[in-house]
Amino acid sequence: MTDTLEIIEHIPALRRRLDGAGPVAFVPTMGNLHDGHITLMRQARTHGRCVVASIFVNRLQFGPSEDFDRYPRTFEPDCNKLRACGIDVLFAPNESELYPAPQNYFIEPPELGNILEGAFRPGFFRGVATVVLKLFNIVQPQVAIFGRKDYQQLQVIRNMVSQLALPINIVSGETARADDGLALSSRNGYLSATERAEAPRLYRVLRELSSAIQAGATDISGLEQAATEKLLNNQWKVDYVAVRKQADLQFPTASESELVILAAAWQGKTRLIDNIEVSAG
Amino acid sequence: MTDTLEIIEHIPALRRRLDGAGPVAFVPTMGNLHDGHITLMRQARTHGRCVVASIFVNRLQFGPSEDFDRYPRTFEPDCNKLRACGIDVLFAPNESELYPAPQNYFIEPPELGNILEGAFRPGFFRGVATVVLKLFNIVQPQVAIFGRKDYQQLQVIRNMVSQLALPINIVSGETARADDGLALSSRNGYLSATERAEAPRLYRVLRELSSAIQAGATDISGLEQAATEKLLNNQWKVDYVAVRKQADLQFPTASESELVILAAAWQGKTRLIDNIEVSAG
Repeated sequence: MTDTLEIIEHIPALRRRLDGAGPVAFVPTMGNLHDGHITLMRQARTHGRCVVASIFVNRLQFGPSEDFDRYPRTFEPDCNKLRACGIDVLFAPNESELYPAPQNYFIEPPELGNILEGAFRPGFFRGVATVVLKLFNIVQPQVAIFGRKDYQQLQVIRNMVSQLALPINIVSGETARADDGLALSSRNGYLSATERAEAPRLYRVLRELSSAIQAGATDISGLEQAATEKLLNNQWKVDYVAVRKQADLQFPTASESELVILAAAWQGKTRLIDNIEVSAG
Repeated sequence: MTDTLEIIEHIPALRRRLDGAGPVAFVPTMGNLHDGHITLMRQARTHGRCVVASIFVNRLQFGPSEDFDRYPRTFEPDCNKLRACGIDVLFAPNESELYPAPQNYFIEPPELGNILEGAFRPGFFRGVATVVLKLFNIVQPQVAIFGRKDYQQLQVIRNMVSQLALPINIVSGETARADDGLALSSRNGYLSATERAEAPRLYRVLRELSSAIQAGATDISGLEQAATEKLLNNQWKVDYVAVRKQADLQFPTASESELVILAAAWQGKTRLIDNIEVSAG
C-alpha cells in the first residue's frame, strides 16, 4: 500500500511510466467515485503489481439529449479516494488527448449492443467499446475490472476482448449498494429527497422477481409485466424489466438456469439501472 | 540472418515465443509471396530484432462474388522464401484459430473506407481493419510494414492506428514491379498470356497522367477521363482512375501538391490495382 498516487494526463508519459511496471490491473471510470468504484479498486490490487485507474467522461457514449454536460465531475475528492486506497497511477486525459481528431473509427458491437440499454441509448455501446479499446491500447493492462452493475456493458466488453483477441483478463466486480439496497451510482446524486426515498424499490422489485423464479415460477413475460406494474404504480417510468440468459442476454429457453434480471427505469429525470443474477431451478 | 524459421499456428504459442523477444517488426500477408512481399520482409529486418510474418487468407475482406476460394495458396514455397530471407517467425493460423466464433465485432472505418476500393468492394476495408487489428493484438509488434501498392489500405491502417491509439509504427514499403512495369500481385497469376502482355498498360497510363500533372496540367477530371479512355480502348473494364490527395484520398484542391493517382481496372476476369504518387507544381 502506497499513498503516492501519480496523476498522468498524457499518453506518452503514461506509456513511459508503465513500461516494465506490470502486471497492470486497470479500472476505467468516469470519475465521481463512490464505494462501488472503490470496491473495484481494491479488487484490482489483488490482480496487479501496478494498479491504474482512469477518469474520463466519454462524450462518445452519451446521446445528444443525455447528461454529458451535467455529469458530475469531482476530480479532487476522486484523487483523495484513489490515494486512500493505494492506487498507483491515475490516468486523467482531457478530451483532446483521447480524441485529438474527431473519432471516426468505431468498434461496432453486434446485436448484443442494440438490445436493452442499446435500444434505449442508441450508440451507447459503440461509444463504450471504442473508448474502452482505446484505453486498453494506451494502458495495455493484463487485467481490467468492470462492475456487474453495468451488466450489459460487462458482457459487451468481455465479448469484444474475445472477438478482438486482446490479451486482457476481464474481471467483474460486485455491485455496491446503500443500506436500503439502492445500487450505488453517480447518477443517484441527481435524485431529489423524495425520489431517493422511492429509488430502492427498483432493487426490491428485482429481488421479488428473482425469488419467484427461484420458487419455480416459469411465466417469464408475466413476471416481467407484474414487476413493471409495481414500478408504474409508484410513479416510475419503466424502460424495461427483462429476464435474460446471463451469457448473451438473449431470451431464455425453458431449460436455461443461469439467468439475469435487468431493469432500467426513471425516477423523475433520473434514469436508474440495476440487475440481479439468478440461478433457476 | 538465420535460416531457422519457426512456424506457429496457435495464438498462445505465438505469445509465448514473442514474450520478451522485441522489438517485433511484423509483415501481415495473405501468402503466395512474391518479390513485393520479400522487399517488405527485408525492410522489416531493419526495424525489429524479431521479424514476424503472417499468412492468412482473410475471408472477412472478400465479397460473396470475389475470389476467396481460388485465391492462390502456396504454403510450402512461401515458407522457403521466408527462410531464405531470414524471417524469425511465421504465424500461420487456420480459420478456427483467428475466428473461433463468427466475427461479430468489427472495426468500422469512416468515409475513407467507402470510396474508391471501398465503393467497388463493399465491406473490404471493414474486413481488412478488423483482421489487422486482431493480428496486431496477437503479435503486438512495435513496427508493421504495409506495401504502398495497396495505397488506400495503407491509409486506412495508418488512420486506424492513430484513431485507436495503438502503440505501433506503420511503415510503408515500395511497390515491386516486373521489368515491364506491372506491379507484382498474387492476382497476376490469374492472367492469360494475352492479358499479361496487356497488363503493363495500367502503370504506363498512370505514369503518363503523372507526367502531365508534373508538366503543369490542372484539369484533373479531363486527365482522369483521358486515362480511362486509353484503357477502355484496349479492352479494359475500368472501375476508376482517380487523382486524389495523398493524406486522405479526398478530391484535391487546386493548391494541393501531394497527390496520388489510383486506378483499378479489369483484364478479363482479373481485377488489377495500381497507383503512383506525384508532387505537383
